[in-house]
Amino acid sequence: MEQRSYAIIGAGALGGFYGARFQHAGCDVHFLLHRDYEHVRQHGLICESKDGDFTLPKVNAYQDVRDMPKCDVVCLSLKATQNHLLPQLLPPVVKDDGVVLVMQNGLGIEEQVADLVGANRVMGGLCFLCSNKVGPGHIRHLDYGHVALGEFASRGISDRMRAIASDFQRAGIRTELNEDLQIVRWQKLVWNIPYNGLSVVLNADTSELMKNPHTRQLVERIMHEVVADAQACGVSLRDGIVAKMLSYTDTMIPYRTSMKIDYDEHSPMEVEAIFGNPLRAADKAGAQSPLLQELYCLLKFMDVRNTAPAG
Amino acid sequence: MEQRSYAIIGAGALGGFYGARFQHAGCDVHFLLHRDYEHVRQHGLICESKDGDFTLPKVNAYQDVRDMPKCDVVCLSLKATQNHLLPQLLPPVVKDDGVVLVMQNGLGIEEQVADLVGANRVMGGLCFLCSNKVGPGHIRHLDYGHVALGEFASRGISDRMRAIASDFQRAGIRTELNEDLQIVRWQKLVWNIPYNGLSVVLNADTSELMKNPHTRQLVERIMHEVVADAQACGVSLRDGIVAKMLSYTDTMIPYRTSMKIDYDEHSPMEVEAIFGNPLRAADKAGAQSPLLQELYCLLKFMDVRNTAPAG
Repeated sequence: MEQRSYAIIGAGALGGFYGARFQHAGCDVHFLLHRDYEHVRQHGLICESKDGDFTLPKVNAYQDVRDMPKCDVVCLSLKATQNHLLPQLLPPVVKDDGVVLVMQNGLGIEEQVADLVGANRVMGGLCFLCSNKVGPGHIRHLDYGHVALGEFASRGISDRMRAIASDFQRAGIRTELNEDLQIVRWQKLVWNIPYNGLSVVLNADTSELMKNPHTRQLVERIMHEVVADAQACGVSLRDGIVAKMLSYTDTMIPYRTSMKIDYDEHSPMEVEAIFGNPLRAADKAGAQSPLLQELYCLLKFMDVRNTAPAG
Repeated sequence: MEQRSYAIIGAGALGGFYGARFQHAGCDVHFLLHRDYEHVRQHGLICESKDGDFTLPKVNAYQDVRDMPKCDVVCLSLKATQNHLLPQLLPPVVKDDGVVLVMQNGLGIEEQVADLVGANRVMGGLCFLCSNKVGPGHIRHLDYGHVALGEFASRGISDRMRAIASDFQRAGIRTELNEDLQIVRWQKLVWNIPYNGLSVVLNADTSELMKNPHTRQLVERIMHEVVADAQACGVSLRDGIVAKMLSYTDTMIPYRTSMKIDYDEHSPMEVEAIFGNPLRAADKAGAQSPLLQELYCLLKFMDVRNTAPAG
């Protein structure tokens, strides 16, 4: 089988990590950068990882998609807060028979991408990754890393999904192939909504939230609400998912969520992707989501104040 | 009519203010103090007020209720977080035909006091007061100050209510005489629950909460939930109360709520009185209160962390 080319749209903690791993494994990779463009063009990428450190002294770096070759797989790894840029960024870089792999958190992004490139050129790739960008072109991979793949426009496991999975595998990344992307999306929201939201509102890591009986109970209630929202949207999550996520989090090392990291860095938070879109989907389906609604309002308030220009 | 004697149980920003005004108007007043006892015994009280400053160089100060005379009216003006002390504090100081006037915020305190002194020796006095303690025995009265009186064990307006109201009037404090204390209690909760809760969680004053469209909407939703909780508990608040409270708050000067002041001073917050008790009452009456429940959990978490000994 022919080798696939990869475009990494947003080479930060997430895109930089997967892109570097692809290139390290011998794939043809093209990185779109913004702030770090000059540095990465000159010095390449550094990846410190629990699975082994490596450097890529030379990478294909771009600051304009119009200079990039059209690629087979376009990894969308920007923060979702940048998605107003997608109409400019995506169409020029995806091959006619290529695919955009949406690696962002939240709900409703594939729909947005489908409007730009056509639904059959969209896949989801949910990342279970704990990594930070510690300097320009310098990524530190702390834990996890596997990716859950799913087709957007159809159910079932496609040939291209298997092909992309084999590239991930070559790059040392475990993948899950899913027959129903919406199940995986909502499943991840069951975790992301309570922990991302409460970690920001309460300035707490996962372990603090789990130790206090009131917030532990609140996490559980929010999880049940998200499961009910999914159900209202026609997505049945498996029984026992809430208990499983709670006990999974109990065994994690204390974890600062990605939204908390954004907040601490005064970056815009992905409130609309992770909270607003599920809330609107549930509302449209006739579900009440008061806990999610309240969290959403708190985060919207905090986000505005946190990113307001100083002075 | 014979003159009534007053005991002030907790002479802080609230009890100190009303007690000082009573004494200034010529009433016989006895102050129970804790931290400020020595200072107040020696130097008396200072009251700075928008209605005129005055000092009381000499007051009847006590640090033990057993030294106090039994009084006609015992003003309970401790923070509700100190209510575990009530079994020691109240019975010795209230006359057989006297009354405890519960001046605390929240719900369920009169019930607790009734268990100690008998239901017919209990009244509620809800304070609409904006004052701070700025130093030992030094109170700064910023705004408002009127008191809503109501009998606990019966409906209607009693003679003793009118008598106490006349003392307040003499002291320059406006009173409202209410036939149904529970209505006034719940009415105040409609304001206190959203503004006290959100001001702490979001580190915001009332005006910031009203300016942001998301928190403004959240305030409104919470208010409607509290109105529904009251209804479930058999207390019908008047139509339009939510709109009235919102427009009232729109015209207020930016206000730091009492719970926010406690939080900023690392004092325990009245979470149980203002949130926990209404929540349990509503739950017992079969009402769902998800917004209140979530706020309660957030505040319980913040309260523990905020008052934990350093280090």
